[in-house]
Amino acid sequence: MSGTLYGLGVGPGDPELLTLKALRLLRAVDVVAYPALEDGDSLARAIVAGHLPDGVEEYAIRIPMTVARAPAQAVYDVAAGYLGAALDAGRSVAVLCEGDPFFYGSFMYLFGRLAERHRVEVVPGVSSLTACAARLGSPLAARNDTLAVLPAPLADEVLAARLDGVDAAAIIKVGRHFPRVRALLDRLGLADRARYVERATMGTERILPLDAVESDGAPYFSTILIHRRGEAWS
Amino acid sequence: MSGTLYGLGVGPGDPELLTLKALRLLRAVDVVAYPALEDGDSLARAIVAGHLPDGVEEYAIRIPMTVARAPAQAVYDVAAGYLGAALDAGRSVAVLCEGDPFFYGSFMYLFGRLAERHRVEVVPGVSSLTACAARLGSPLAARNDTLAVLPAPLADEVLAARLDGVDAAAIIKVGRHFPRVRALLDRLGLADRARYVERATMGTERILPLDAVESDGAPYFSTILIHRRGEAWS
Repeated sequence: MSGTLYGLGVGPGDPELLTLKALRLLRAVDVVAYPALEDGDSLARAIVAGHLPDGVEEYAIRIPMTVARAPAQAVYDVAAGYLGAALDAGRSVAVLCEGDPFFYGSFMYLFGRLAERHRVEVVPGVSSLTACAARLGSPLAARNDTLAVLPAPLADEVLAARLDGVDAAAIIKVGRHFPRVRALLDRLGLADRARYVERATMGTERILPLDAVESDGAPYFSTILIHRRGEAWS
Repeated sequence: MSGTLYGLGVGPGDPELLTLKALRLLRAVDVVAYPALEDGDSLARAIVAGHLPDGVEEYAIRIPMTVARAPAQAVYDVAAGYLGAALDAGRSVAVLCEGDPFFYGSFMYLFGRLAERHRVEVVPGVSSLTACAARLGSPLAARNDTLAVLPAPLADEVLAARLDGVDAAAIIKVGRHFPRVRALLDRLGLADRARYVERATMGTERILPLDAVESDGAPYFSTILIHRRGEAWS
């Protein structure tokens, strides 16, 4: 009998934000796979390091750091081949996913390659979106607010169109796009409603005023939340 | 010393989607408060029922089922008075929140009344948003997708404007608005991209084709996810 592939959301960074279900499955599967940098460092693995069973097989999916798509796609082809063979042999596989597997995650690349032929179960996790709101100490969205989630690499005109008239917004994956996004928010008159957090719930978390973010210093895991004027919760 | 108010996200319904942090705090606090219906039923309490310590003080916030705001506001005034006094007396209080406290949750009403005078910590939870995507078995958003989260009570023209050209969308709190939202999706040519799930991860979960949803039968916890055409994960 073929094994099950689990997409395990491990939450935004604080190891305590793991769910009971992810923990149970992590301790039960035969193979634990996770994305890693080329040097082997893996944030997803670090989040669950305290819970990895002794002797479990680990499989690091080493993603090349390039903007070209083809090299990463080749890595996922190889990983899907290896993990698919493990599933065919009746072994269960957990793929660790930072945040939530289906919220802007790289799990989709394995899912797209394996879901047709194998049983897949996705275990949702705490996303960085709500973790950022928790750490910033104010509601992400309330009542009948519209909320837009916008990746920072999008062009200014796309971001501006989506921000127009919205009640709340989250600009994610800010990173090196910070100076451009910051200038856009100034131009749209939204800077005073915007708040910045990087690596929310991780040990290296920082919450900064927009003016204090170094122009080349925002990491990939940085987010700007924007609220409409006024208190949504009164 | 004043106690701490914890806004505890308890996840979308499956008790196993509780986080380790929420579980630890639930077992440590002096008072556990939660929203309840007027008859006392509480979904948030039901999710953690297996973990409530013996003898912990429980405080049900019984929300009147009316569309008028004033009665509910009066109930939150009373609850904030009671819980604020407990905090002043040095007791710790956890408020259980379905999903995530800061994602369209009622926690904001207590937060708005208590955060200025008391220490508050929000523990993010798995939101219904990603739980719905997990249960429907396809990514909510990927790569540089724009994602719109839209409460169903919004007027058709607001929904239509926000859906225009978006890559992915979630229409939440569908409930009695189902027939109108369904008609709107037909008009916008989006019905074939839309998928419906109610009470995701709960024992009573149902995933239905739009055509199979009874016109007066959608519960409050029902969601329609809309994907752009084509596979985002190829």
